[in-house]
Amino acid sequence: MPRTPSAQHPAGPIRLGPDARAALRPARVEVADGFWQSRREVNAGTSIPQGPGLLESAGNLHNLRLAAGTAEGEFQGAYPFVDTDVYKWLEAAAWQLAQGRSAELEADVDRIVSLVAAAQQPDGYLNTWFQLVKGGERYRDLRWGHELYCAGHLVQAAVAHHRATGRTELLDVAVKFADHIDSVFGPPGSGKEIDGIDGHPEVETALVELYRETGERRYLDLAGYFVDRHGHGLLGGEAYCQDRVPVREADNVEGHAVRQLYLLAAVADLATETGEAELRSAAERLWHAMTTTKTHLTGGLGAHHDWEDFGDPYELPNERAYCETCAAIASIQWSWRMALLTGEARYSDLVERTLFNGFLAGVSLDGERWLYVNPLQVRDGHTDPGGDQSARRTRWFRCACCPPNVMRLLAGLEHYLASGDHDGLQIHQYVTGRYTSGPIVVRAETDYPWDGTVALTVEGTPTDRPWTLSLRIPQWCRDFRVRCGQETYDRAADDGWLRLERTWAPGDRVVLELSMEPRLTAADPRVDAVRGCVAIERGPLVHCLEQVDHPGGGLDDIVLDTSRPLAVKHRPDLLGGVTTVVAAGRRRRTPDRGWWPYASADTAAAPEPDGEPVELTAIPYYAWANREDGSMRVWLPTS
Amino acid sequence: MPRTPSAQHPAGPIRLGPDARAALRPARVEVADGFWQSRREVNAGTSIPQGPGLLESAGNLHNLRLAAGTAEGEFQGAYPFVDTDVYKWLEAAAWQLAQGRSAELEADVDRIVSLVAAAQQPDGYLNTWFQLVKGGERYRDLRWGHELYCAGHLVQAAVAHHRATGRTELLDVAVKFADHIDSVFGPPGSGKEIDGIDGHPEVETALVELYRETGERRYLDLAGYFVDRHGHGLLGGEAYCQDRVPVREADNVEGHAVRQLYLLAAVADLATETGEAELRSAAERLWHAMTTTKTHLTGGLGAHHDWEDFGDPYELPNERAYCETCAAIASIQWSWRMALLTGEARYSDLVERTLFNGFLAGVSLDGERWLYVNPLQVRDGHTDPGGDQSARRTRWFRCACCPPNVMRLLAGLEHYLASGDHDGLQIHQYVTGRYTSGPIVVRAETDYPWDGTVALTVEGTPTDRPWTLSLRIPQWCRDFRVRCGQETYDRAADDGWLRLERTWAPGDRVVLELSMEPRLTAADPRVDAVRGCVAIERGPLVHCLEQVDHPGGGLDDIVLDTSRPLAVKHRPDLLGGVTTVVAAGRRRRTPDRGWWPYASADTAAAPEPDGEPVELTAIPYYAWANREDGSMRVWLPTS
Repeated sequence: MPRTPSAQHPAGPIRLGPDARAALRPARVEVADGFWQSRREVNAGTSIPQGPGLLESAGNLHNLRLAAGTAEGEFQGAYPFVDTDVYKWLEAAAWQLAQGRSAELEADVDRIVSLVAAAQQPDGYLNTWFQLVKGGERYRDLRWGHELYCAGHLVQAAVAHHRATGRTELLDVAVKFADHIDSVFGPPGSGKEIDGIDGHPEVETALVELYRETGERRYLDLAGYFVDRHGHGLLGGEAYCQDRVPVREADNVEGHAVRQLYLLAAVADLATETGEAELRSAAERLWHAMTTTKTHLTGGLGAHHDWEDFGDPYELPNERAYCETCAAIASIQWSWRMALLTGEARYSDLVERTLFNGFLAGVSLDGERWLYVNPLQVRDGHTDPGGDQSARRTRWFRCACCPPNVMRLLAGLEHYLASGDHDGLQIHQYVTGRYTSGPIVVRAETDYPWDGTVALTVEGTPTDRPWTLSLRIPQWCRDFRVRCGQETYDRAADDGWLRLERTWAPGDRVVLELSMEPRLTAADPRVDAVRGCVAIERGPLVHCLEQVDHPGGGLDDIVLDTSRPLAVKHRPDLLGGVTTVVAAGRRRRTPDRGWWPYASADTAAAPEPDGEPVELTAIPYYAWANREDGSMRVWLPTS
Repeated sequence: MPRTPSAQHPAGPIRLGPDARAALRPARVEVADGFWQSRREVNAGTSIPQGPGLLESAGNLHNLRLAAGTAEGEFQGAYPFVDTDVYKWLEAAAWQLAQGRSAELEADVDRIVSLVAAAQQPDGYLNTWFQLVKGGERYRDLRWGHELYCAGHLVQAAVAHHRATGRTELLDVAVKFADHIDSVFGPPGSGKEIDGIDGHPEVETALVELYRETGERRYLDLAGYFVDRHGHGLLGGEAYCQDRVPVREADNVEGHAVRQLYLLAAVADLATETGEAELRSAAERLWHAMTTTKTHLTGGLGAHHDWEDFGDPYELPNERAYCETCAAIASIQWSWRMALLTGEARYSDLVERTLFNGFLAGVSLDGERWLYVNPLQVRDGHTDPGGDQSARRTRWFRCACCPPNVMRLLAGLEHYLASGDHDGLQIHQYVTGRYTSGPIVVRAETDYPWDGTVALTVEGTPTDRPWTLSLRIPQWCRDFRVRCGQETYDRAADDGWLRLERTWAPGDRVVLELSMEPRLTAADPRVDAVRGCVAIERGPLVHCLEQVDHPGGGLDDIVLDTSRPLAVKHRPDLLGGVTTVVAAGRRRRTPDRGWWPYASADTAAAPEPDGEPVELTAIPYYAWANREDGSMRVWLPTS
């Protein structure tokens, strides 16, 4: 029976279970205007509506019809996980529908949900690749087969569809598949047929969500089983699929970045729902290890093209940064769960950094072209290999995991922005709109990230008791001020929160002013790839140079003059309206060293000719690769 | 009919054709003692004798028996080019036999040559993978099939076998296969069945050698055809297999490094044999582009694990340097051909650097373990993936291209050391032994590279006319002296040669003294990966730090103090006897920055605590990874 989403429980990802031990619970946010709303409008107006057509041309929908027996022909697509493109699109469409009805989108969703339901086998199994290409052979290739991964995305789409629309058609499919999986998989001694895990985690966090949506504890237990069987050699003990070491014992993230991060999102979910201290401490330890040693400045994750892997600690290359868009999304999902679990602001610091940089660069400004990998440098003379790993935006990928993943995150973005607890409301991310936690309603207006002022007005409040409005003071911010009535604050607590406890009245105002002075950032000296370089940042935005703004030579000879001040220039005409940072630099004149580019350090240290002065225009990184092809740099040499 | 190799024509790779337009011709060198002889003894005493057993256990010989119909079972090995492991071993064994008979080795060679001959099909075709796995389907997958690549290595083995022993059994097989290829492949309009090229070049340079060995011009023409059909889209236009642009138009090396380099060796061969100026100038241009923009300090080539590719210009990562051992070998082969073609010393400068560093690191000191990739850095906390691309030495590889390639180069090394022309003798590389060019015989004694003194004595000379003894003054050497009778020289010509023209008498002595002061080397500032770092070099040797010599902490916190002098310490006990360079350094104490490793450049620039002083011991790079596993660094931060 259709239900309407409750205003109390936002129709978004993560609706915590009744026994959850989270410090915070997601709060409802209506995003009304501003930076993210404009990205969401492109998502809603262009990216999502184009999805069905792209899924049709790529053959994903055709495969479902084949499996249902309503079409004839060959399976299309190169991977056993092509169904997930459909599921992720459905999830995106569901979160979109939660924000407002659209007859056209509903029709697309209904049509595709029917295709999915028709493709399901009578016992609940569903995977078009194995049904059509592998002759129905199941669960024989858990390392590469992605069957449980696909199930996970089906479940997430179904949960979204149910939460957003109250409808059960897709949830029924998902429950049936989950029950099938639960009947097949289990630990030794359970009497189940297979003791196994999926090479590509995803089903784990999805099963926790299914538990939350249905109240069925079996799904939570199954998720816990899958998580804990990683690291016991069921998949050959490979780090690639997090099978080298159990997650409770691991000391750093490793292997395929997206797999690792989805698994850790599930670890956070499990720690939240079960209160297990060992899982929580593993998640905290691994998050700290990842941020301190394996995270790019953009929040991007994954250092190797080969195997899409994390690299060694501090191995953070620029031109070969992998930083898969999906890894940024998975990182946001994990970090947000950690923020809820622990209540600590640093997790939302990483969410912010990743949203504005490593994630958002994955989609073009027009919402029609994508990046699968997100390098921090493209060299002069770059020969692009094309294909999915291209440093040039692409209309769709052979492995099209990223585009619908971007769509679902943007469509459900309002659910990562704020939380509530019994003491009040916590604002994690600043947008123009309305934040709601129970009776508490706060309206915000801001031109963030172009401007650092956020004006907050209490619109709803229990008047009989004090509560705390908590503002996250971003980790990047060295200088801020909060005005609340007659009082002013300029220091946050050590945990990154500024807490204002009051008995509030409707109309009370708080103004947060974050200094948006552009700044130069350097890395830990163990990050060899950026030694002798700095990056330009402003607010939450990492900036970069693009070739197109610097005619007359390449970027690889550019040197930033750190002795000269940085200037800020808002450019409403540029890239949909961006604030650029203007810096002084020069183009190095490297003396001709003949055929060998290495020379005595004495010679190399000798002063070079001064080089031609160049005005450097640093655009926000998220907006790169939206004009003509060329080189790009985030990190700039200082000599 | 068996022939005995002539003393005039050394039984080594590259015996130029009668019309060759080379500036120089290979001269005969007998290596008697010293650095390279000790490596060759390990090669002759351990590596080569172990080859047949390894080829037996890996299944390569079994595959030949299967193809001959003298064994039963399954094809073994994962690649269509497994036959080349056999051919490269045969080539190694042949060059070894050229230096002295060995009944045991001869028996192995005879046995394996018979296996190869028996596996050949009646029309000359030979490739066990396609005969056994692909049902005899031929030349349908030129991009990945490697059939012509295999043919190339067969031809090279056959030429070596013939040159070294005078025997024709293997040459007959090769000629038959080459004739078959010639009957199948040709340009449009030639009436041949296929207009095609091989995805993995090798057959081109091999066919030039076959022309040289047999005098049959058809093979030279076929080589020219294969070279020139690259870059015309016959293989989809991919840079990976040098099909993006014709070699005559290319402006930099690109794609799979080994493929590119074998192709360019053939370009040099063709330019030499045909005198074609356009091919010569392409080879010169590409060599210059490669050395200036895509060569690691060790001479290693190939920047990407992914696709084993060259990277973009100046993209020269340390920890992910690919630097396949085979690429170093191919580079030596190409550069030596360029040295002969042009007479220019810089090509032999690169040969020397590559031999002593990027190449020699590929084999362990005991000759039993190998590196396929040769990184310039292994980080603290490195998680090794194992497999062929491991940074730890391996007994044999799934793709075992490198080990027998090392064996063949070491076994034939004496052919890359010196040349002659009508004016005299040119010594390209310094070894203890005897250099012979026609009537000219010069004996050399040296402890190079540990010591920079080379004592040369004229043993044979035409007494009636002057001739020139040319000594290559290595590009790395800033300071040298040559004493010849009463005269002393300390400047070479601009082209790197020091030329001593005399009417020589037997017993005349020349002493070359190259300064072996250790030195610090810096890179072109466009090599981002090593900004702010220097490398320690001494003579032709690149040095590195290994964890095992620096207990008490990792290597990633080490800073070299460039203000303190470098010291030299010969260590006969260490790694078979090496000269180490001892430097002053400290271990950085990086302040705890919390969870985020990036901070304001002002903070980062603030002086750090001084750090604990550490004595740094830099061993020659070629000797790394011969003790316990650990981190390693070539490039050292200076602050």
